[in-house]
Amino acid sequence: MRRMFLPTSRDQALAMDVADDLAGFREEFSLPDGIVYLDGNSLGPLPTRTLTRVQEVVAREWGEDLIRSWTANGWMDLPATVGRAIAPLIGARPDEVVVADSTSVNLFKLLAAVLRMRPGRRTILSERENFPTDLYMAQGLVDLLGAGAELRLVNRSELSGALDEGVAVLALTHVDFRTGECHDMAALTAAAHRVGALVLWDLSHSAGALPVDLNGCAADLGVGCGYKFLNGGPGAPAYAFVAGRLQAELQSPLWGWLGHAEPFAFSDRYVPAPGIACLLCGTPPILSLTALACGVEMVGRAGLERIRRKSLALGGLFIGLVERECGEYGYDLASPRDEARRGAQVSFRHPEGGAIMGALDRAGVVGDFRPPDLLRFGFSPLFLRFVDVWDAVATLRRVSEERFSRHR
Amino acid sequence: MRRMFLPTSRDQALAMDVADDLAGFREEFSLPDGIVYLDGNSLGPLPTRTLTRVQEVVAREWGEDLIRSWTANGWMDLPATVGRAIAPLIGARPDEVVVADSTSVNLFKLLAAVLRMRPGRRTILSERENFPTDLYMAQGLVDLLGAGAELRLVNRSELSGALDEGVAVLALTHVDFRTGECHDMAALTAAAHRVGALVLWDLSHSAGALPVDLNGCAADLGVGCGYKFLNGGPGAPAYAFVAGRLQAELQSPLWGWLGHAEPFAFSDRYVPAPGIACLLCGTPPILSLTALACGVEMVGRAGLERIRRKSLALGGLFIGLVERECGEYGYDLASPRDEARRGAQVSFRHPEGGAIMGALDRAGVVGDFRPPDLLRFGFSPLFLRFVDVWDAVATLRRVSEERFSRHR
Repeated sequence: MRRMFLPTSRDQALAMDVADDLAGFREEFSLPDGIVYLDGNSLGPLPTRTLTRVQEVVAREWGEDLIRSWTANGWMDLPATVGRAIAPLIGARPDEVVVADSTSVNLFKLLAAVLRMRPGRRTILSERENFPTDLYMAQGLVDLLGAGAELRLVNRSELSGALDEGVAVLALTHVDFRTGECHDMAALTAAAHRVGALVLWDLSHSAGALPVDLNGCAADLGVGCGYKFLNGGPGAPAYAFVAGRLQAELQSPLWGWLGHAEPFAFSDRYVPAPGIACLLCGTPPILSLTALACGVEMVGRAGLERIRRKSLALGGLFIGLVERECGEYGYDLASPRDEARRGAQVSFRHPEGGAIMGALDRAGVVGDFRPPDLLRFGFSPLFLRFVDVWDAVATLRRVSEERFSRHR
Repeated sequence: MRRMFLPTSRDQALAMDVADDLAGFREEFSLPDGIVYLDGNSLGPLPTRTLTRVQEVVAREWGEDLIRSWTANGWMDLPATVGRAIAPLIGARPDEVVVADSTSVNLFKLLAAVLRMRPGRRTILSERENFPTDLYMAQGLVDLLGAGAELRLVNRSELSGALDEGVAVLALTHVDFRTGECHDMAALTAAAHRVGALVLWDLSHSAGALPVDLNGCAADLGVGCGYKFLNGGPGAPAYAFVAGRLQAELQSPLWGWLGHAEPFAFSDRYVPAPGIACLLCGTPPILSLTALACGVEMVGRAGLERIRRKSLALGGLFIGLVERECGEYGYDLASPRDEARRGAQVSFRHPEGGAIMGALDRAGVVGDFRPPDLLRFGFSPLFLRFVDVWDAVATLRRVSEERFSRHR
């Protein structure tokens, strides 16, 4: 493992920012004063340009151009346009990604589709620790289809062993929302393919934070949300990926008019659009989609290699400083120390985690607590500085000192 | 039928505006100059307050308050909050409506749910002329469930006769998108109930344009979009209605985390939220939902009785003036003359409708054309003036004169 430089003064952390080739991106965000925001993995902050652009879409495109905007201002194509912009961030071809609905709804579409593409196989395989909505959507589908399907949940370490000829699809979240641990996408995809199963990757905690190479891993299907590392705004629409080789046989169960081959023919019989567009359903929320477009553009411009490098550096710095400065307070690293297996968040366990996170929050360090004991910190590198990590750990140390000396 | 006053001069039309108690609402919209916008039934125009409010949500709630906004600024409750505001517009109780997803997705949820509530019945009954996405979503569900369901389509006049003990649900759009004709919601609901079927009303072309009384009609289920007469913005989220008496037995097939009884418990087993909240699914698009809230508020404040009265007057004026001024050009009224059966749009058929609508558009009168021959004009009364109707018909006359003299 690479040995990390650990600054011993705030000035040294500031010097790291001076040397940071992504530092300029911070100016493209509107951030509140006095806050270290380590929750970009839950809701990315506001790109300043988004405010201008949303205003423009509301005032000019909606207000002035009205209904014409569906064609004249490209609203109709926006799900495909933004999908094309997301594609290179996840290792997909431009015609393999579309923006539609929510991650949950896209999961339903793809899971239902895959059960039909693998007749005779009834199992959706996942892990118990998968993101809850991923499990729920699969449970709902199984419940709807009755004898047609089952959801089998195993522990993470048992996944490879659980792959058998009955598995239609292995459905996993690439980066674990609790620990930030990455699955080995290439290895698990290959393992699933060896038994003839397809693989569906939820990239909600990956896209925009680290390079994802869906096609390089020969992945089949993918979904993800727009409001975390893509900085697309609260409840930003989600996206879906279908490998080109599968598009001809994939059929969404949600036959909305925008997924029709000719939406404006208003025929009474559904004919799915060719390609990825068949995953479109109802009319997309243009204002939210506009904000997503801005966030995606910025990530594309910054480049994922640089983003990944800085994010790992920020996370590694955080781990190193917490262990050096707060070692005596019992914070237990829940994330992989190995960079190759760690996403863009770092989690620590602490029995008093809820109270500690509350105190951090009051002191201006915003992270996120998951009961019973998990403190999560996101390292979204387009707006975070190395000095922010320094300050966050200094705050954690002060908060810990106060709490544990008070308790003595 | 009430006899309508038909002005014989533009000044008389202006005088009608002076007497209009809704006239003040026009100032609350941002409308482009030089346009008569008769397409509010496709995309309602921009309420000025929406621009301010969206800006505030982006800049302050997202930009400043960040993740805290989910609780501190009520984002989490927004689907229920806006649902409660829509409820009185459609004759529902506040706990019977929620905003979620798109109309299409909500149709899927409710149709799937109702097939399970009426086991032994496999038919979704609808009319051939129903809005395409309504038919498509039902076709997709039937296709997914296989032997479990069928979609039977009949002509409008055959609906009552087609109701039998095999029908699980009668699914109709209240106001026809082509002709503006209203179904008799009370009579059809009662007829469906007599054979033990439930009724699902799509209110996309009704809500915000005329009073709808779901509970007064003992209706069971409803859906509708936010971007037409509710002026909620392009692709505004949709809403769903479930009568209180059915909520305990209704189960959505889309088990997203926001429909969970305890979304933040992050348990691995889905337990649906009690009541209407079980129809929530993924994270809602807050920017688009914010715009919808503004549009709904305005409709509520104006009051549907006044809205309906003015909308009928505008539509009636249009019919009367077209027939008087353009009688020789062969426009054939496709909408009911009877006000009780007419929604807030007026359609005419004309064999050269496409070219005529193009000419109208170039002359600043925005309507909508549906092949092969339908010209549709929406009479959304919060921003339209009687003089706009006068001007639109004067333009139609000029356009018709030019076209048909040129052709002679």
